[in-house]
Amino acid sequence: MNTSFSVPEPLPQLMKVAEEVKKASISLGQATNEERCNALINMAKALSDKSSEILEANLIDLERSSDEGLGKSLISRLQLNEAKLQGCIDGVLKVSELSDPVGKRQLHRELDERLILERVTVPLGVLGVIFESRPDALIQIASLAIRSGNGALLKGGSEARETNQAIMQAFVGGLSNSSIGAGALSLLTTRQESLGLLRLDGLVDLIIPRGSNELVRFIQDNTRIPVLGHADGICHLYVDSSVDIDQAINLALDSKIQYPAACNAIETLLIHEDIADLFLQKSLPMFSNAGVILRGDKKSQSLGVENPATDSDWATEYLDLILSIKIVSNFDEAMEHIRKYSSRHTEAIATTDKAVAEKFLSSVDSAGVYHNCSTRFADGFRYGFGAEVGISTQTLPPRGPVGLEGLVTYRYFIRGEGDLSKDFVSGSRTFSHKDLPL
Amino acid sequence: MNTSFSVPEPLPQLMKVAEEVKKASISLGQATNEERCNALINMAKALSDKSSEILEANLIDLERSSDEGLGKSLISRLQLNEAKLQGCIDGVLKVSELSDPVGKRQLHRELDERLILERVTVPLGVLGVIFESRPDALIQIASLAIRSGNGALLKGGSEARETNQAIMQAFVGGLSNSSIGAGALSLLTTRQESLGLLRLDGLVDLIIPRGSNELVRFIQDNTRIPVLGHADGICHLYVDSSVDIDQAINLALDSKIQYPAACNAIETLLIHEDIADLFLQKSLPMFSNAGVILRGDKKSQSLGVENPATDSDWATEYLDLILSIKIVSNFDEAMEHIRKYSSRHTEAIATTDKAVAEKFLSSVDSAGVYHNCSTRFADGFRYGFGAEVGISTQTLPPRGPVGLEGLVTYRYFIRGEGDLSKDFVSGSRTFSHKDLPL
Repeated sequence: MNTSFSVPEPLPQLMKVAEEVKKASISLGQATNEERCNALINMAKALSDKSSEILEANLIDLERSSDEGLGKSLISRLQLNEAKLQGCIDGVLKVSELSDPVGKRQLHRELDERLILERVTVPLGVLGVIFESRPDALIQIASLAIRSGNGALLKGGSEARETNQAIMQAFVGGLSNSSIGAGALSLLTTRQESLGLLRLDGLVDLIIPRGSNELVRFIQDNTRIPVLGHADGICHLYVDSSVDIDQAINLALDSKIQYPAACNAIETLLIHEDIADLFLQKSLPMFSNAGVILRGDKKSQSLGVENPATDSDWATEYLDLILSIKIVSNFDEAMEHIRKYSSRHTEAIATTDKAVAEKFLSSVDSAGVYHNCSTRFADGFRYGFGAEVGISTQTLPPRGPVGLEGLVTYRYFIRGEGDLSKDFVSGSRTFSHKDLPL
Repeated sequence: MNTSFSVPEPLPQLMKVAEEVKKASISLGQATNEERCNALINMAKALSDKSSEILEANLIDLERSSDEGLGKSLISRLQLNEAKLQGCIDGVLKVSELSDPVGKRQLHRELDERLILERVTVPLGVLGVIFESRPDALIQIASLAIRSGNGALLKGGSEARETNQAIMQAFVGGLSNSSIGAGALSLLTTRQESLGLLRLDGLVDLIIPRGSNELVRFIQDNTRIPVLGHADGICHLYVDSSVDIDQAINLALDSKIQYPAACNAIETLLIHEDIADLFLQKSLPMFSNAGVILRGDKKSQSLGVENPATDSDWATEYLDLILSIKIVSNFDEAMEHIRKYSSRHTEAIATTDKAVAEKFLSSVDSAGVYHNCSTRFADGFRYGFGAEVGISTQTLPPRGPVGLEGLVTYRYFIRGEGDLSKDFVSGSRTFSHKDLPL
């Protein structure tokens, strides 16, 4: 654990930009649902109108990055083409169709006659977004911010700087044609600014990182602003002794290979010793066929797993077709292992014993805990949220896949007629605390 | 802003205690509502049975603290007597009667046939509680922790050490007679432990400070664990030009004098210049009668406010019968002042103009924003929560007065029958996302 923040104080120039976005966010926070939706439609239209400029800028970024030797997978994330850009534009329009997260009344209570308490959702204020490579992240997050009534300071990777600037220019044009001004969004361009962003407590309400585990961990370790995201996703599947072996193997395969680079893919398979021999006999050739490299503890090696797992394997998110395997002598040993190594993202159990399944669900403190279901379902779209702002592995809400509701908070409003607390203290008035319709 | 944490790594002994409480909290988290309520009833009974021991221990603390020259107000907070202890015991029983915050289903959705997603509230895990002087805080927080299924590491002030130990002994006895073991609560006794507590990320899920603003600020600045609380409570009342002056004066008086040491008392009165002369003419003698010392800006001094306010006044929580006054030329100037100096706890407007009131409610981003109502209503009991865990001035939920719901989080559960993500990717299955009854 770091004991000091290694980021510098924000420069006056950044403070000024942040204060302007903060100010604009206050007006934006009062915009109606219709105004915010119209702004998104204008943003989408502007992206269409400026698509050739955006794609040209992207070519410049690609050429420079390729000259600078940027890796193949980063190049592919950086690259836009007409189809991909159209997908992004459709995405902006889809965000405009999501149900409004702002202005939802969560509590409506009469404290006494004509003294009414409400709790209503409101935008957070200003989001700080730091993303790597992918210019589509800029488009997505900017539209989620406007949809939820939040301003945003957006810092993209320098490899995408021309693309990001072209996109932001389109947004500024689009927003200027709407009742919402363009001041609520600002693109940061230097590394100095991205570090300073982490120190903007009081001006920035939430940091959303989109990038590597290292980036997320650095941000979490170097800011006091809440961070919506997760570094590692070390997910487990526990195969109980009472189990439908074929089903369990399919769950293990799907959880590992369907998209191994995803945070909700499993990294470790825990197998009850009573079933381990049978399970491995049947599954080893299937893992092998799927190209999965297995690393096992001593027991599983004695049952045919080829490579040894060291202690560091249990703490590693491979993001690849590698799976560590441990044989446990009972349920409690599986729980112990999960408690020690899980990143509290998503864990699953494969069992036909309902009692064991329910014990697993109530014992494992991860954001998602599943019974006979692939861990790959841990996703905002699959949960039906319509959008995913991020997946949080912290304990406090919001945790797990977070939709638009993660970009709002609430305020308590009281409307009275000159009501004084002393009257309730003296007993001349008493609280009715009567809930009213929401 | 501090740039480094000045607290030491936790000692192995503290780590061991914290790990034991964590372990116990996992069982406690699975206890039924009835088991947790019974545990509270046993805790209350044990306090009754051991009341003479507790009061004797309190006498020892009082004598020593008085010898050591502890201030009068701290002595009065430290002091227990039969009536006060009985009040605490009644409080424990009341907590047992609150509705269960655990196990509430917040979302219930069919993802596809026989693939069911739920979001259900669960305890946070382990609370870290740091409180000064008042042994009643120990009793209250320990009972809220058990009620909500959380373990707790509790660190009281050294001035109350004998009392706290006697109380904890009673709790251990009471819990041992219940189906919930005594291991979920642990009293820390040294300053070293209280500092180490701030570094127990991963073992402690929420820190709850109960004490001075300085204590809270120190804790907020020196831990990465979420903190439920607030340092300053700098609340404002803005008196608009269209106003019922008598009503506004009563609101100002109630908000200031009803209990000036409370965080929800106002520190600054903002008055529209069009009404300032009339308002002050009428209210100055009333403030004076109530013993309130006024400190004003130049304009209000010219209208009769005796003492000058300096810039530091606007940023000061007096916790006393002192009120700063500023005359503003319009609504926007009032907003600007609130944005600059408010601690985002609670602000109120006095006005007969509904449009101005609604603009105030939608512009001020504090946890509580009131129209024609004393700021003193910002309180969990007054909101009807039955208990108050703390008042939070952060942006993200929970904010404002926080009841038992602030001590729980949620998990997503999926129960399936071997469901694989690849089938939804290939299109052989599709998501229904059909909401089911909660």
